[in-house]
Amino acid sequence: MRRFTEESVWRKSVDQEDIVEKQLQNKSRSECGTDIKDELHEECGVFGAYNLKGEDIANWVYYGLFSLQHRGQESCGIAVSENRDIRYYKDMGLVSEVFTPENLDKLHGDIAVGHVRYSTAGSSVRANAQPLVTKYIKGTLAIVHNGNLVNAVDLREELEKNGAIFQTTIDSEVIAYLVAKERVTSRSVEEAVAKAMQYIKGAYSLLVMSPRKITAARDPFGFKPLCLGKRDDTYVVASETCALDTVGAEFIRDLEPGEIITITEDGVKSNRQYCNMVKPARCIFEYIYFARPDSVIDDVSVFASRIMAGRILAQSHPVEADMVVGVPESGNAAAMGYSLESGIPYGQAFVKNTYVGRTFIKPKQSMREQSVKIKLNVLKENVKGKRIIMVDDSIVRGTTSANIVTMLRNAGATEVHVRISSPPFKFPCYFGTDIPNGDQLIANHHTIDEIRQLLGADSLGYLDCNRMNEMVKDLEYCDACFTGNYPVDPPTRDIRGDMEV
Amino acid sequence: MRRFTEESVWRKSVDQEDIVEKQLQNKSRSECGTDIKDELHEECGVFGAYNLKGEDIANWVYYGLFSLQHRGQESCGIAVSENRDIRYYKDMGLVSEVFTPENLDKLHGDIAVGHVRYSTAGSSVRANAQPLVTKYIKGTLAIVHNGNLVNAVDLREELEKNGAIFQTTIDSEVIAYLVAKERVTSRSVEEAVAKAMQYIKGAYSLLVMSPRKITAARDPFGFKPLCLGKRDDTYVVASETCALDTVGAEFIRDLEPGEIITITEDGVKSNRQYCNMVKPARCIFEYIYFARPDSVIDDVSVFASRIMAGRILAQSHPVEADMVVGVPESGNAAAMGYSLESGIPYGQAFVKNTYVGRTFIKPKQSMREQSVKIKLNVLKENVKGKRIIMVDDSIVRGTTSANIVTMLRNAGATEVHVRISSPPFKFPCYFGTDIPNGDQLIANHHTIDEIRQLLGADSLGYLDCNRMNEMVKDLEYCDACFTGNYPVDPPTRDIRGDMEV
Amino acid sequence: MRRFTEESVWRKSVDQEDIVEKQLQNKSRSECGTDIKDELHEECGVFGAYNLKGEDIANWVYYGLFSLQHRGQESCGIAVSENRDIRYYKDMGLVSEVFTPENLDKLHGDIAVGHVRYSTAGSSVRANAQPLVTKYIKGTLAIVHNGNLVNAVDLREELEKNGAIFQTTIDSEVIAYLVAKERVTSRSVEEAVAKAMQYIKGAYSLLVMSPRKITAARDPFGFKPLCLGKRDDTYVVASETCALDTVGAEFIRDLEPGEIITITEDGVKSNRQYCNMVKPARCIFEYIYFARPDSVIDDVSVFASRIMAGRILAQSHPVEADMVVGVPESGNAAAMGYSLESGIPYGQAFVKNTYVGRTFIKPKQSMREQSVKIKLNVLKENVKGKRIIMVDDSIVRGTTSANIVTMLRNAGATEVHVRISSPPFKFPCYFGTDIPNGDQLIANHHTIDEIRQLLGADSLGYLDCNRMNEMVKDLEYCDACFTGNYPVDPPTRDIRGDMEV
Amino acid sequence: MRRFTEESVWRKSVDQEDIVEKQLQNKSRSECGTDIKDELHEECGVFGAYNLKGEDIANWVYYGLFSLQHRGQESCGIAVSENRDIRYYKDMGLVSEVFTPENLDKLHGDIAVGHVRYSTAGSSVRANAQPLVTKYIKGTLAIVHNGNLVNAVDLREELEKNGAIFQTTIDSEVIAYLVAKERVTSRSVEEAVAKAMQYIKGAYSLLVMSPRKITAARDPFGFKPLCLGKRDDTYVVASETCALDTVGAEFIRDLEPGEIITITEDGVKSNRQYCNMVKPARCIFEYIYFARPDSVIDDVSVFASRIMAGRILAQSHPVEADMVVGVPESGNAAAMGYSLESGIPYGQAFVKNTYVGRTFIKPKQSMREQSVKIKLNVLKENVKGKRIIMVDDSIVRGTTSANIVTMLRNAGATEVHVRISSPPFKFPCYFGTDIPNGDQLIANHHTIDEIRQLLGADSLGYLDCNRMNEMVKDLEYCDACFTGNYPVDPPTRDIRGDMEV
Repeated sequence: MRRFTEESVWRKSVDQEDIVEKQLQNKSRSECGTDIKDELHEECGVFGAYNLKGEDIANWVYYGLFSLQHRGQESCGIAVSENRDIRYYKDMGLVSEVFTPENLDKLHGDIAVGHVRYSTAGSSVRANAQPLVTKYIKGTLAIVHNGNLVNAVDLREELEKNGAIFQTTIDSEVIAYLVAKERVTSRSVEEAVAKAMQYIKGAYSLLVMSPRKITAARDPFGFKPLCLGKRDDTYVVASETCALDTVGAEFIRDLEPGEIITITEDGVKSNRQYCNMVKPARCIFEYIYFARPDSVIDDVSVFASRIMAGRILAQSHPVEADMVVGVPESGNAAAMGYSLESGIPYGQAFVKNTYVGRTFIKPKQSMREQSVKIKLNVLKENVKGKRIIMVDDSIVRGTTSANIVTMLRNAGATEVHVRISSPPFKFPCYFGTDIPNGDQLIANHHTIDEIRQLLGADSLGYLDCNRMNEMVKDLEYCDACFTGNYPVDPPTRDIRGDMEV
Repeated sequence: MRRFTEESVWRKSVDQEDIVEKQLQNKSRSECGTDIKDELHEECGVFGAYNLKGEDIANWVYYGLFSLQHRGQESCGIAVSENRDIRYYKDMGLVSEVFTPENLDKLHGDIAVGHVRYSTAGSSVRANAQPLVTKYIKGTLAIVHNGNLVNAVDLREELEKNGAIFQTTIDSEVIAYLVAKERVTSRSVEEAVAKAMQYIKGAYSLLVMSPRKITAARDPFGFKPLCLGKRDDTYVVASETCALDTVGAEFIRDLEPGEIITITEDGVKSNRQYCNMVKPARCIFEYIYFARPDSVIDDVSVFASRIMAGRILAQSHPVEADMVVGVPESGNAAAMGYSLESGIPYGQAFVKNTYVGRTFIKPKQSMREQSVKIKLNVLKENVKGKRIIMVDDSIVRGTTSANIVTMLRNAGATEVHVRISSPPFKFPCYFGTDIPNGDQLIANHHTIDEIRQLLGADSLGYLDCNRMNEMVKDLEYCDACFTGNYPVDPPTRDIRGDMEV
Repeated sequence: MRRFTEESVWRKSVDQEDIVEKQLQNKSRSECGTDIKDELHEECGVFGAYNLKGEDIANWVYYGLFSLQHRGQESCGIAVSENRDIRYYKDMGLVSEVFTPENLDKLHGDIAVGHVRYSTAGSSVRANAQPLVTKYIKGTLAIVHNGNLVNAVDLREELEKNGAIFQTTIDSEVIAYLVAKERVTSRSVEEAVAKAMQYIKGAYSLLVMSPRKITAARDPFGFKPLCLGKRDDTYVVASETCALDTVGAEFIRDLEPGEIITITEDGVKSNRQYCNMVKPARCIFEYIYFARPDSVIDDVSVFASRIMAGRILAQSHPVEADMVVGVPESGNAAAMGYSLESGIPYGQAFVKNTYVGRTFIKPKQSMREQSVKIKLNVLKENVKGKRIIMVDDSIVRGTTSANIVTMLRNAGATEVHVRISSPPFKFPCYFGTDIPNGDQLIANHHTIDEIRQLLGADSLGYLDCNRMNEMVKDLEYCDACFTGNYPVDPPTRDIRGDMEV
Repeated sequence: MRRFTEESVWRKSVDQEDIVEKQLQNKSRSECGTDIKDELHEECGVFGAYNLKGEDIANWVYYGLFSLQHRGQESCGIAVSENRDIRYYKDMGLVSEVFTPENLDKLHGDIAVGHVRYSTAGSSVRANAQPLVTKYIKGTLAIVHNGNLVNAVDLREELEKNGAIFQTTIDSEVIAYLVAKERVTSRSVEEAVAKAMQYIKGAYSLLVMSPRKITAARDPFGFKPLCLGKRDDTYVVASETCALDTVGAEFIRDLEPGEIITITEDGVKSNRQYCNMVKPARCIFEYIYFARPDSVIDDVSVFASRIMAGRILAQSHPVEADMVVGVPESGNAAAMGYSLESGIPYGQAFVKNTYVGRTFIKPKQSMREQSVKIKLNVLKENVKGKRIIMVDDSIVRGTTSANIVTMLRNAGATEVHVRISSPPFKFPCYFGTDIPNGDQLIANHHTIDEIRQLLGADSLGYLDCNRMNEMVKDLEYCDACFTGNYPVDPPTRDIRGDMEV
């Protein structure tokens, strides 16, 4: 009888897919560093640049944001400081949609920060785009922020009690208030940022541009990455090293968890007062899925960590087969690792149509089953008659994975073995990753064998939670989405919905 | 020798015209209640509606804003309250450009406020569009505002000292802070608004929508109009009565200078604590030029006041002629008044091309002299051989008027007598009217006879400052732009420029 | 019983209004030379310019088209000849919407033609925008055309029998084929145009630009206006003289009915072989309504003809009253004429909101009765207690007129006398005017007294058909829409619908 | 001294890159089946669908065009036949940009054809978008066309002599004329198409939709692919089989070179009168680069042919190395083939940023060297210290390849061996591929060793022209771009430039 229950849960899950997909319709990530599942979303990427020679720098931020576009596709913006004026432009859309030669040419200045943003359904509004630029008692600030505070609601309430008003629902506005408030009794913006960090809890990689400096901060847990680079006379801070490469900057170093740096005309100063206060809790999903494979975070190559995940999978879940394939794009590296470890040839089973982007009109009911095929086709000639090991980075709701297994079988695969380069995904994230709620997570309701049956796979193997450390060379990381062991207490309340429609 | 100096001033003025026109390029008022001069600008119009039966009301605001579009063409917006949620949509552009069936359909709710905005060059940015919607300790507020505070900079500074941050340069944000702050110690929003009015100085006609009520306030001087109407189960507040007509509402009454009213499910309550504290100072330019002629402000018909201005002109500056004509559109009513008083037939001398709007590409140098002709052509057949009395509402820089006089002469007018239905315009306004600075005001540098010569007119007559009271049936009004007698001290500082590009 | 029938017809008419208004939704003429009825539509305006000194001339056409915008608001375009290359840009929309500095700057060349277009509902598609630019055996042609051929379907069929293919449903494509065909056996384009005119029947004012000349032709009946002007080294041809004024050109003369002129580097040559073949049949509605009042067509001032129509009305349909008012804009001139003749003062009863343009969202049922009020408000203060003579240029379906009469009464008018400056409109036009079909013409089903009752007017007077000649100084004209006496046989078939959606 | 000449040629080539890249700026192919070079362009893709049950089918074409988007990104369009009316929508842009739910919903009908288009710089204008829909003596036709006629200019001239006029510069308009002309003396459209094929020479895969059928034709050489499929009651014809997969259709068969099929309510009929007349000359570049790897053309898998090319390369140009990598995306399959044959592990060296699309703002001079890096980054961690075999499908101008080699060296590669899965590219194509002219082809001016030096590679190996047959299982193909042996004489003249700007 249990079986019936399961099936009805499964069916419900499939129905919920409609709703979820509808919500995602305008925000699918279709490309670089992305899988076709549209299910897990990073919340943001930040980029800042400071030119010591007074040259315009907004175009560096523009190119930097392109390389961070995989971290957020809903809105983006750039703020510049010219003389002492801070000016900005931001809007909903991709970097290539928001910025035109005309508006980019208006952004003069030798200091600049930029942001790409993904948001949950409710707050995908223009008002929430970043940078958040505010005037306060000492001048003007532009803030960009990646991460999620767990005590934002409490902080807002506290501020409101003292008369604060809020025009957005983003954490950056809370941070702006705290910095502004602390600035009154501080000698510098960086001192005010440091004081504000006493209050804010959770995940943040943060840039605060004031007219003559950039202050960058990474939370004490180091949830989100943030790194420093330099090219000629320009300092660059960015969410990922791939953005340094894009503008031709040399990597200097990652900010330490808890570190605050200040970039001024005198160079870079560091404040480590919050370093080593807590055990770091780097987001392991940056390595598994979010970050671009060409990035290196805290001295660990993202690509290498995925190769290693594949190798571990091959050790833990070996199987005889003819070809190892990745589900593009995010499954490819782990598939290569599996291949290297197992000796089974790496091959290509899928062709992904990357033209299917945000404005794609979804099929109506009659063509519904085509939905995945429009995005992903099987290389039938290369699959027919083969035993396939199909590697993907994660399973969220499971419906897409089931579709892909079916496509492989229809193409003539004789066996399909599914290997997942992360442990079963069971718990929500409160630190800046947008995931379906627990009800929609297949691993929440099902044993691994049940999942295997639902996918229609011949075998199914997940990465062992205890071996994730091998992926990241024993770095300390957060695995709460797999274990429920949150490094800080999750928030008890949400900020109420946005006001803009 | 003096003559040379004058001419060089005049030439400079013409050159400045280039600059000013460039600034105005994207914001010309081309139509209803507008002249072709593009020189004087109202700052805003407000509209609110409250339906007692719980029916959606955003479309009423949409139509109401259409009828107030002459008060501001740069940006517009609507906020609604549905259940207890306040939501809004606003953007740069005309009402017909900003609102589509799609976004209007998203604005559900039985309480709504809207705004049309004109701004000075520096702050024509999206961030400054209204309604300003903010969350604060007690919930959410949407504020729309017509007018200009004279102590906004001081108030901002004071607030900033206590930690406030500002994301716009509009007065509404200052007001929002004050209301939010006072609300903590008040029993209601209307009480908080009343307390906030202790601090704000200057011109304001204001709507504050909280989830369950609209609080409307008119400053104690009554600079800007604000009126109340009703249709069936819906209360309406609007800048002008023409907006009541548009939605079919009956006029109930104007708000008194200093009055605060609150519209709730229980109807309308009034607070007159600020009434009769000071001598009213209604903006006389509402009657002369800004307001739509079909509006009635404080019991005086705008159209009738213009007719009266024409009659006074005919009494003070009679001249023999064959035809009285108005410079469209704003000169027409006074021209009719002149005709009625003098017995000289009213006629039409001009055809205005109202297709020439905001996106019109200005002629290059070679076609430069055509700039006025593209907007305004002379009815040669009707002008030839006639002595013309040409009535306009005001002369600002004088260059356009000179062009029009030349056009009439070229069309064969034997005499051109210019009559202006307001006194010479000499002083800047600090209460919500955007005018060129003093340097560009022709009456600032020239005697009336010099102006006549510069225009190339046979005679020139302005409305006598001492008889303006006859236009408005002895209402008390502000005539500072003619006399320099400001009812409140002008501000000593400006808010520094906007941040959005 | 007859009464019931009438009422049901009336109700049907009102219902049809919905449909018609829906069709018109995207194409209302809201401004210059326009009434608020949105019921009668001119089909096109043409403008050409030839600079003898080789200077770029596209911007002249741009400004010229602005002044002809009242003749068509659906699409527009400009073609230029640079060296021997003809290039064009055209699209749906107003001149101000279609042309940007970017695309206008791409149109280099010293010869240029332009077009504004209105079309019937079925063919409002981009493919039908003009100029129509085609390559043929001798090079390239750009054709712009105002008017309607009555034998277009027959000509198309004949051409198709010889292998022609058609990509649009506009007459210009038929003309292009005929000119191309005749060009093979002709020495020049103008000779080919002349030969083609043997075949085409109906109304046309036509410009044919070939790489080195403009050939302009007006049909032998002279249905549509076409005039020639010059400024410095530039010849200009245009539908109306107001376009000459706009670019500062001197009027030289109208083309005679049947005349063909050719503008080349050697100046203007004329071919009068088709002149004086038939009795001219100028469209009388150009004078009554279509043309801009500042235009002069065939030596008759449009404004003066409207003044005269008003005078005739005052003679034929006198009535005691306090004020004569026009329904804006098109009724104003005739109202002035009525005033001058009767001695009853001319006044203003209405304020029109010209911001209500093409993209206006129509009220839903609950606000339906507001539809007219949003566009047109009554100056209550100026109407109250008065006996009003309300002058309009025509009545089509009658529903709008009835609404306006009601508005005047509600505003306190004690009597409303309607005077129409044209005869009852009873027959469709086949020569380039888009009018509702006969069923929707109120005068088709009703006596004048019945119409008066339906309007709710105290009296109703139309212009006497026999006195229209006085309006136009005994010019010969077409009055088929009033009399059914068509100067050429109407077509028996329509071209089938367009293909573009 | 010769060396200097070479270098100057090289520098010239680099400078020309600026120009070429500028032209390409708006038309880069950034994704599926694309390399990052933006240098070779397919001209078009076609898709048609016929539903036997009368159901709407436009959405099938919409999804089909998505899967063919790699064949053309400049414009697209869909035409439908509903009852007997043919209607269409087309515009510049990607499928996802051109089609919205609104315009797609207007396209009803059970027969439909669609098109994606790439064009050379001069003719990238809206007028040239397809389908070309024309009316002719027997009704309406919609034509979509992939390929290039070599005698189009002659045919146009011939038609023009008989009075034809042309509004575009596309071959489809010539074809439409010929079909229309032949239709007069034919019993059916398919007969007319067959007769027209007597005249047209060159490459064409063609769909002609008449109101009740689709006629599909492939030229006798079979230059371009065209295949037939079916799903339930719907027949589908498409340029590639990947489009069949996308809509869930079963592959039936390729059209034979020279075959004409007609799809009606009675099913599919075939006319093979032009089959086997000439030796087939399939475009080998479809296999090397153009087609999607998941397509199968004339029974040869595109993916398999690329794998084979890699294997041949490994046999002909073996080298000791640590890793084989492909230049994404088009080099990947051949790289896998090289790996399989050589036993050297396949790896990943690059991450491509697919967000860098058509609207990307190119870096200015100061950031110029970043141009490639923004699109493509090296996986430094995976490259460092390794001897790399880098496989790409072709070298056109060579500058991009040189940049990529440099990137690999900078990342620490100790050796870089370049392998190209096609022979040196030396001759222009006249059959539908847009390539830089001969001057810009590096292989035109340089020996292979010179190219190696210019690229900075340690070794360089091209596919042997004599072994290409092994890639395609001995199919007959056209290799003119490598050998200059054109299967039909190239055209001697071009059609003169387009008229639209």
